[in-house]
Amino acid sequence: MNSDLAWLKEPVARPDENAARLAAERQAMLIKPPGALGRLEALAIRLAAWQRTPKPTADRVRIVVFAGDHGVTEEGVSAFPQSVTAAMVNQFARGGAAISVLARTLGAELEVINLGTVEETGSVPGVLDLRLGLGTANFLRGPAMTERQLAEALRAGRDAAARASSAGIRIFIGGEMGIGNTTAAAALGAALLGETPEALAGPGAGLDTEGVRRKAEIIRRALDRHGSYLADPLEVLRRLGGFEIAALAGAFVTCAQRGLPVLVDGFICTAAALAAERLCPRVSGWFLYAHASAEPGHARMLAALDGKPLLDLGMRLGEGSGAAVALPLLRLVCTLHAGMATFEEAGIAGKSS
Amino acid sequence: MNSDLAWLKEPVARPDENAARLAAERQAMLIKPPGALGRLEALAIRLAAWQRTPKPTADRVRIVVFAGDHGVTEEGVSAFPQSVTAAMVNQFARGGAAISVLARTLGAELEVINLGTVEETGSVPGVLDLRLGLGTANFLRGPAMTERQLAEALRAGRDAAARASSAGIRIFIGGEMGIGNTTAAAALGAALLGETPEALAGPGAGLDTEGVRRKAEIIRRALDRHGSYLADPLEVLRRLGGFEIAALAGAFVTCAQRGLPVLVDGFICTAAALAAERLCPRVSGWFLYAHASAEPGHARMLAALDGKPLLDLGMRLGEGSGAAVALPLLRLVCTLHAGMATFEEAGIAGKSS
Repeated sequence: MNSDLAWLKEPVARPDENAARLAAERQAMLIKPPGALGRLEALAIRLAAWQRTPKPTADRVRIVVFAGDHGVTEEGVSAFPQSVTAAMVNQFARGGAAISVLARTLGAELEVINLGTVEETGSVPGVLDLRLGLGTANFLRGPAMTERQLAEALRAGRDAAARASSAGIRIFIGGEMGIGNTTAAAALGAALLGETPEALAGPGAGLDTEGVRRKAEIIRRALDRHGSYLADPLEVLRRLGGFEIAALAGAFVTCAQRGLPVLVDGFICTAAALAAERLCPRVSGWFLYAHASAEPGHARMLAALDGKPLLDLGMRLGEGSGAAVALPLLRLVCTLHAGMATFEEAGIAGKSS
Repeated sequence: MNSDLAWLKEPVARPDENAARLAAERQAMLIKPPGALGRLEALAIRLAAWQRTPKPTADRVRIVVFAGDHGVTEEGVSAFPQSVTAAMVNQFARGGAAISVLARTLGAELEVINLGTVEETGSVPGVLDLRLGLGTANFLRGPAMTERQLAEALRAGRDAAARASSAGIRIFIGGEMGIGNTTAAAALGAALLGETPEALAGPGAGLDTEGVRRKAEIIRRALDRHGSYLADPLEVLRRLGGFEIAALAGAFVTCAQRGLPVLVDGFICTAAALAAERLCPRVSGWFLYAHASAEPGHARMLAALDGKPLLDLGMRLGEGSGAAVALPLLRLVCTLHAGMATFEEAGIAGKSS
């Protein structure tokens, strides 16, 4: 491995099992039948372990949206033109996009990083310009990224996660924007899981049946073309991924190394999470999965990560929107855990023998 | 029907289909692929129809928790002693219960109504004392309520919903507390659906397998005892229900008559919703179902109401807690719907042809 990438192999942080034990003891004392809060109880305990405190919080949250274009769009795999990526980056900063509205409503910090749109976004206040190229290369003709681009994309993610960790953020959310990126994510998933393209390719932003068939065919040709290189997860990421997907993977690895829990969004982010887990085993111990995407291949990636999503609302927007929509759940988990009275405080007898 | 109950037959409000159409048009213009927000889009449109405005809100929410004890607990159908009902009513007002923490966190109004606990709660500030008796009668020995008690319980719910409607509340949440009330709700469900007691009886607050078997047997004996009276849904409610369940049913009917949407909580509230629908057909057109309860019989009642819950987190606490946990979703639905830019505002080209 390139020495620029040695950080990917640094050890993953260990959750604090003592904090988990204390949180579990507290859950058992709260004035409710044991287990009556269902998954909310396990979430409180898990957040306690991650945050190394018996009373975790989810107040300080940062959403980092990575954007980049995809060369493979020239094969006609998306329902939208490539210019939409830069236009949406613009909207993230201007406040009109779904993720902007969600971040504002939730009081979450929003960071937008342009890793390589084809069109100029100009100097937009609130967008960090780290462009590595005018989109990736078409992965039917060669690797999507050069080695240097991959290393820089991963590092952009690492730096974003490190900034969040240093700033005292308690939950990290990654988001993405990139016309064509469900094709890249599906190719990545197929390569990493050894699944057929048909099992991973879906309608994305709005392909019809014929479009989905064509998308799967493009992925099949890409898998053939890159062949045995795909045994190495880093090469899978470089050859089939995208700037924003690599950055997400880098961010997720760093979150796990620094002990910052990640609320993983939908299809693209889960592909990045899967790549991260293959690059640095056990990072997925720091991931929570926000929602089941409407994109049909999502379930296979989740299953490979042993992930059980919190929500199932048929969303497929990306941007980190599904994770943002799930955030209030985590906040309520924390306020219930910290704010409910214990049986002793309330002077109530527990369950009869 | 008793003339005291004639209000149950007043017509249900009609949602505003024009507002729904305008909301659907707006959804189609927002900067996202059509349908990408999944169920959130349909919810925005439905809330628009209910609230008679193309831009609905879920800011002003009131949670009304109705409490009452159940005579059938003397058959040993609950894991907790009956004294817990009054103690929890006390905690609702003092702020230590799950629903109190949730209401506070969510900025929702909380109203607590004691319809008949066995033990005194004393004069607790913040609890409306409308006690109709020292709990219901044991439904194995006779009807749970007198005709007068039933009428007054229904009216207590009606009045609570009318107060909420008059106060400008936009979403109504009902909650309940009553040791033994999963037994009453299961009996109600079995009678109204023509299902076996085994299909509706579950562990409630924590029965073991033998306890669940015994609970189903108690319900079977009750169904036999009350026999053909159970053809009338009002008699089902009176004979097998409880003060808090009847009040919820009354509140839900009134909400539908006044055009106030209801976010229905779990097992007990869904039993009340089912009773409400049988008392006043089409009221369920005003209901949203917050979550799939861990109580196994819940799914059958939801299916009968054609209800698809928003969340599935294994909760089974009652108090209205599952509805409160789902509330942030509705709020995000409204802020996304109102706050996102349109393609035109953003100067972005839509989906390519």
